[in-house]
Amino acid sequence: MDFYPIIPAGGAGSRLWPLSRKARPKFLTDLTGSGKSLLQLTLDRLAPLSSRPVIVTGASHADDVREQAGEADVVVEPKMRGTMAAIGLAAAIIEHRHGDAIVGSFAADHVITDEGAFREAVRGAIEAAEAGYVVTIGISPDGPSTAYGYIHGGADLPTTTRAAALSVSEFVEKPQAEVAARYLATGEYFWNAGMFIAKASVLLDALQRFHPEIAEPLRQLGRSWDGPDRERTIEQCWEPLPVEVIDRAVAEPLAAEGGVAVVPCEMGWSDVGDYASLGDVVPEAGGAHAAPGGVSQPTVILDSPDSLVYTSTKPVVVVGVPDAVVVEMDDVILVTQKSASQQVKGAVDTLEESGLGYLQ
Amino acid sequence: MDFYPIIPAGGAGSRLWPLSRKARPKFLTDLTGSGKSLLQLTLDRLAPLSSRPVIVTGASHADDVREQAGEADVVVEPKMRGTMAAIGLAAAIIEHRHGDAIVGSFAADHVITDEGAFREAVRGAIEAAEAGYVVTIGISPDGPSTAYGYIHGGADLPTTTRAAALSVSEFVEKPQAEVAARYLATGEYFWNAGMFIAKASVLLDALQRFHPEIAEPLRQLGRSWDGPDRERTIEQCWEPLPVEVIDRAVAEPLAAEGGVAVVPCEMGWSDVGDYASLGDVVPEAGGAHAAPGGVSQPTVILDSPDSLVYTSTKPVVVVGVPDAVVVEMDDVILVTQKSASQQVKGAVDTLEESGLGYLQ
Repeated sequence: MDFYPIIPAGGAGSRLWPLSRKARPKFLTDLTGSGKSLLQLTLDRLAPLSSRPVIVTGASHADDVREQAGEADVVVEPKMRGTMAAIGLAAAIIEHRHGDAIVGSFAADHVITDEGAFREAVRGAIEAAEAGYVVTIGISPDGPSTAYGYIHGGADLPTTTRAAALSVSEFVEKPQAEVAARYLATGEYFWNAGMFIAKASVLLDALQRFHPEIAEPLRQLGRSWDGPDRERTIEQCWEPLPVEVIDRAVAEPLAAEGGVAVVPCEMGWSDVGDYASLGDVVPEAGGAHAAPGGVSQPTVILDSPDSLVYTSTKPVVVVGVPDAVVVEMDDVILVTQKSASQQVKGAVDTLEESGLGYLQ
Repeated sequence: MDFYPIIPAGGAGSRLWPLSRKARPKFLTDLTGSGKSLLQLTLDRLAPLSSRPVIVTGASHADDVREQAGEADVVVEPKMRGTMAAIGLAAAIIEHRHGDAIVGSFAADHVITDEGAFREAVRGAIEAAEAGYVVTIGISPDGPSTAYGYIHGGADLPTTTRAAALSVSEFVEKPQAEVAARYLATGEYFWNAGMFIAKASVLLDALQRFHPEIAEPLRQLGRSWDGPDRERTIEQCWEPLPVEVIDRAVAEPLAAEGGVAVVPCEMGWSDVGDYASLGDVVPEAGGAHAAPGGVSQPTVILDSPDSLVYTSTKPVVVVGVPDAVVVEMDDVILVTQKSASQQVKGAVDTLEESGLGYLQ
C-alpha cells in the first residue's frame, strides 16, 4: 500500500527563544547548523520512504512552509484545532484522493541522528499498520525523563518480520521522576514521540467510533478539499471542531481495546525542546555556532564546560559559567544556563510587559 | 601648610574588561553611572581639600587625562617605573615648585561612598603629617578579605585632635583567609588602600635614606621639570630608575623605625577591582545599566538575583543565572558570573590567541 507521511508543522518552540520566534518557529529554522531547517531535515529523512508527504500548517506560516516544502503537499489549517484535527484532516484528504493508504504522523521539529534505524522502524510499523493496527514508534528511553509521555508495551505481535512490534497496553502522561525510574527499570516502557502510523481508513474509522463529531466533518472536508466547496465546507465543518489531541482522541481508547501496536526503536531521537536538549544534538564546535540568519563570530569560552553560544554580529566571551547558553541575535541577546532551560518560555511570556513584545 | 594630592592614574583594570580597556582603562570610565569617570570622581572628592592636585599618568593616556583633569596639573610619566617613582616624581616637582608642602597619594580608580568621612580622615592625616609622620589611611575592614594588604596599628599618637592616629607597627601583604580572619578578630588591622600623606620633604628624605638611587634622580627631575632641561634629565634620570612600589620602598622600612602613622576610617571604600565589587557600588537599578559610551537598552532579568547587566545596542534577557554579569558593548559581549570575577583578567590575556587582541 502507498505510504503518505503527515507532518504537522506548528508550535512556537518558545523554550528555544530567541532562535525560535513566533513568526519563525523552530521547525522553519536551521538550529543544528546543517544548513537546513528542522522541517527540511524531516522531509529528507522521510524521502526514502515516500515522495508524497503532506505538511499541515497554520496560515501564518504557510508561505514560509511552502518555500521549504519542495515536492511536499501543504495543507493550510483554517484555524488551530489540535493534532487530532490536523492529522485527521490530512488523512481524510489522502483517503479521498488516493483511496485507502497508510498514513503516518511525524513532528516537523524533532531531530533523529540514526535515520537508518528510524526508517527501519517505520517500515516495520507500516507492516503492522497493514495488518490493521494503529502503530506508534516507541523511543527506547536513555533515562527516566519526566519530559515525555510513555508507552507501555505488552505482548509481542506477529504482524511484522522487519521489526519487533508489541501490543500497547496503555499510554501514560509525563510521569514524576520516581515513576519514570520505575518505568525504566521494567524495560517495558518507551517514550511517546507522537509518531502514529495507520491505514487512513483504520484511523478515521476509529475516530468515527470514539468521536463521530470530529470524524464526520473531517471526512466531509476531505471530500470537498480539492473542489469548489472547500471554503464553504471549512466554515461549516472546521470552525465548530473541538480542540483535541490524537493521543487522547484515538490512541488511548483504541489501546484499551488492543488495537494499538508499538515498534520500539533506538534512533537518537530528540524533540529539541529546550537548550539542554539542543546542546545534545548540535555538533561540538567548541560550543560556538552561528545563529540562524547570523554570522559566526569569534567566540572565547573559558572555564565554562558544556556551554552553547550562538552569535550573529559580535564576538562573545564567556568566562566561568558552566552550561552557559548565550544567544546573540541581531535584535536581542539571551543569557541563560541549560539548567534553567525550562524557564525560558516564562521569560518570553513576560516580554510584552517589558515593551519587548515585538521580540517574541 | 599647603596640601597637594597626587593621583597616580594607571593600571589597565582588566578584571573589569570590556568596560575597562587598555586604551581607556577604568579610571577614565564612568563605571558607576554617575556621568563622571572614576578619575573625575576622585578629583571632586579631593576638591574641598585642595585645588591643586597633580595627576601622574602614562603617555598613552595623557590626552584623555588632560581632557578630564579640569584645573589639575598633569605630569606625564616618561615610562612606567612603579608607584614609588610616580608619586616621588610628583612630590619632587611639588617640593621644587612650592617649597615644603604636604602631599598625599590617592588612586584614580577607587570609589568612596562616605566622602565626608574620607575628607575628615585626610584632614587628620595632614595634621599627623605636619608632625613629621608618613601617614596612611587605614580602611576599617568589613570582612576578612584576602584581596588587600593590611596595616597593623599600634599605640595611639597624640599628634592630631581631628582623628585618631595610631603608630603603624607593620604592613603585611595580602594574607591567606585564616590569617585575615585572625587579623579581623584583633581589631588592630586595617586595609591598605594605598593612601599616603606626608610632607614632601619627609617622604623624599626617607626615600633618600632607604633608596638614594631613586631619591636623587627624582629630586633632580623635580628641579629641572619646569625648565629647558626636562627632556635631557628624563633621559639621564628616569630611564635608569628601578621599578619600585611606595609600600616596599618607604612605608615598610619607615614603619619599622616608628615613622609611619595610620588614621583608621570607615568611608565605604572600594577599589572596584572586579565585577563582584563593582556590583556593590553601582546603584541597584534592577541590575541594568548603560555601558560607557552605550545606551541603556530594555533589560529583562528573571530568576537571576544579584545580576549586573550593562547594555549598549541591544535588549538583553537573562534567565536563571544568579550573579550573572553581562556586558554588551558595541564591539563585544562578556558573559560571566560574579563568582568568576577574578578569571576575567585571564580571559583578556587569551584574546590575542583568538584573534581578538584588538578588543583588549
